[in-house]
Amino acid sequence: MINPRMLELGKAPSTIRELFAYGQRRKQEVGAHHVFDLSIGNPSTPTPAAVTERMRQLLSQPAETIHGYTNAPGTAEVRAAVARNLNERFDAGALPQHVYMTCGAYAALAVALRALTVPGDQVVVNAPYFPEYRVLAEAADAQLVEVPTVPDTFQLDLAALDAAIGPRTSVVIVNSPNNPAGAVYTADVLQGLGDLLRRKSAAFGHPVFLLSDEPYRELSYDAPVPFPANFYDHTVVCYSWAKSLSLPGERIGYAYASSRMDCADEVMAAIAGAGRALGFVNAPVLFQRVMETCIDCPPDLSDYARNRTLLTEGLARLGYEFVHPDGAFYLWVRALEPDAEAFSARARELDLLIVPSNSFGCEGWVRCSYCVSSAVIERSMAAWEALKRSYE
Amino acid sequence: MINPRMLELGKAPSTIRELFAYGQRRKQEVGAHHVFDLSIGNPSTPTPAAVTERMRQLLSQPAETIHGYTNAPGTAEVRAAVARNLNERFDAGALPQHVYMTCGAYAALAVALRALTVPGDQVVVNAPYFPEYRVLAEAADAQLVEVPTVPDTFQLDLAALDAAIGPRTSVVIVNSPNNPAGAVYTADVLQGLGDLLRRKSAAFGHPVFLLSDEPYRELSYDAPVPFPANFYDHTVVCYSWAKSLSLPGERIGYAYASSRMDCADEVMAAIAGAGRALGFVNAPVLFQRVMETCIDCPPDLSDYARNRTLLTEGLARLGYEFVHPDGAFYLWVRALEPDAEAFSARARELDLLIVPSNSFGCEGWVRCSYCVSSAVIERSMAAWEALKRSYE
Repeated sequence: MINPRMLELGKAPSTIRELFAYGQRRKQEVGAHHVFDLSIGNPSTPTPAAVTERMRQLLSQPAETIHGYTNAPGTAEVRAAVARNLNERFDAGALPQHVYMTCGAYAALAVALRALTVPGDQVVVNAPYFPEYRVLAEAADAQLVEVPTVPDTFQLDLAALDAAIGPRTSVVIVNSPNNPAGAVYTADVLQGLGDLLRRKSAAFGHPVFLLSDEPYRELSYDAPVPFPANFYDHTVVCYSWAKSLSLPGERIGYAYASSRMDCADEVMAAIAGAGRALGFVNAPVLFQRVMETCIDCPPDLSDYARNRTLLTEGLARLGYEFVHPDGAFYLWVRALEPDAEAFSARARELDLLIVPSNSFGCEGWVRCSYCVSSAVIERSMAAWEALKRSYE
Repeated sequence: MINPRMLELGKAPSTIRELFAYGQRRKQEVGAHHVFDLSIGNPSTPTPAAVTERMRQLLSQPAETIHGYTNAPGTAEVRAAVARNLNERFDAGALPQHVYMTCGAYAALAVALRALTVPGDQVVVNAPYFPEYRVLAEAADAQLVEVPTVPDTFQLDLAALDAAIGPRTSVVIVNSPNNPAGAVYTADVLQGLGDLLRRKSAAFGHPVFLLSDEPYRELSYDAPVPFPANFYDHTVVCYSWAKSLSLPGERIGYAYASSRMDCADEVMAAIAGAGRALGFVNAPVLFQRVMETCIDCPPDLSDYARNRTLLTEGLARLGYEFVHPDGAFYLWVRALEPDAEAFSARARELDLLIVPSNSFGCEGWVRCSYCVSSAVIERSMAAWEALKRSYE
């Protein structure tokens, strides 16, 4: 029979993707010029020329070599490249055998959560959080536990985490730079988190794993992003080149089980098992081979930096309140009424598409993606102004 | 904690992929020339030039357009192309909204099984069968029920299916052309299967879904392959271009819920929900766009047809017994002792890599992939001869 849980998930699609789909329809109705779609994190910066050039080179090689199956965890070359990259940048101590290539960070999260939980376990997330964490945790028959972050800074609330992490907690998820709030967790906060998780693991007699979701790692404007795995050994990193190299639709990323943890081999085996169970065979091979040589390609943040300035200065001028974002390409803006969904709906009437905070596990805010052309940000200001005025 | 089921799956990787990995190591040790790897279905025929040309064209378009997210079920263009293709070739009555693009047929099977079963349901397979069906069914907490096919012909055994399908059966999987036996189910057999499933569905008061796994649909040597969905409305088709267009590592395929079934919309919603739950977002976009225009590209079967003749004639000369394959690129050969694993191990000593039938749910046979260069088949004959002699 049709599975009622899957049916419900399919009929209630993610708010973000629903808004994105609405925007696509709306653009066809009234013209793309008139819709200010700040809904989805679809990078507007072009893929670097080096990536395209590498693909062209690959296409001139024998087809059976470049499009064939790889081993399930990925090519030896790309796994070595990932380990080298992490070691050069973060002194991570990474070994290639602890890298598992995936169809993007979302698949990495899916396999890691399946590998690191048994039914009935708890998965702790820090709100506001990427809403699909709930979907993936519940699909693993785990229970999602929401812990609020510190008001205004949106840094981790270590006291609240201390209270929430119990003997059934198998995984804590962090996401820095944060989607949706744009916060970057400081080294001090991560050190505190590491200390807390070591203490909890010792008390419970089993490791509480840290799942570090890092698709925005490269997107920081003022200072490098501290690497969570350097503060806690039992960390699994979930990464994607979707945002840094503007390849979101290509589904290429990895899960990396820190080689410093005592059970890294077991965690990798369980991740490989979860890959089989969930339906992954190997990550798309052409992009594995692209990353073999393009992994050190720097992201181009110039558009996002300009947009960040345009949007924050524009909204400040209009009197909006927001969190100054240190990283990612999202601005977290306080809604002008307590009901963020109503606020988002009113914005939609003005063809301004912004995501209500309810779907991120908190009330009263909206997320605005500024990974769009600067012209969209500029043109959106009239809508922001009209929206503000409608509340006066 | 580390999930013991996932750990077990990861530590006991699929026999086929294990043999493939062994072959890769062995080739490095003794040289590729000396290893006769007939283990995996990794197409040896090059990807058609039209596919490569289409990729080159796409790479000259703006990068944010070609690498961006698509809607979760795929681009409107490729879904329309799939429906048109099925309608032109099979008069399938397919609507684009019942097509869901996936990371290959394996992902299509994963989401379809998750969508069409609840824990405790039974999934019926026809042995010999692709071993990962068991992994995917058990990951959905369903029970796999093996039904043997007819000896010698390896066609469906309708009487045995009649006996096996009960009120907890939610899905029957068929795979024609068959991996591993190479059998193509005849129209008569499929008509009988449709009649049986209609009778069972009526008796149980709920549809028994047919899951038709069709990655080899285009690989038939003598006559077109009958399309199972045309014999039974409650069919979900799982397809991949891995084999027909030699793109196995790129992970591009689809699930299609026959538009003729009354609950096609619900099935699609449940498939979309399963996609979220299992970790799929959208299928790799570059290859979605390739398929928008290359879907009618004919497969080049000339190498496989030649290999089929070389291998069958060669083994017949040596006195081996096998099933004459109508489709796919596998030869199903009777082992020279009852224990197929021992037979496969002895072949491995001769650097001849063939997959024992145990992993396909039956005893006493081996699967030989002939999607390799003809030179490999020719060179392997000495090993086949030595293997035969070792049993005399």
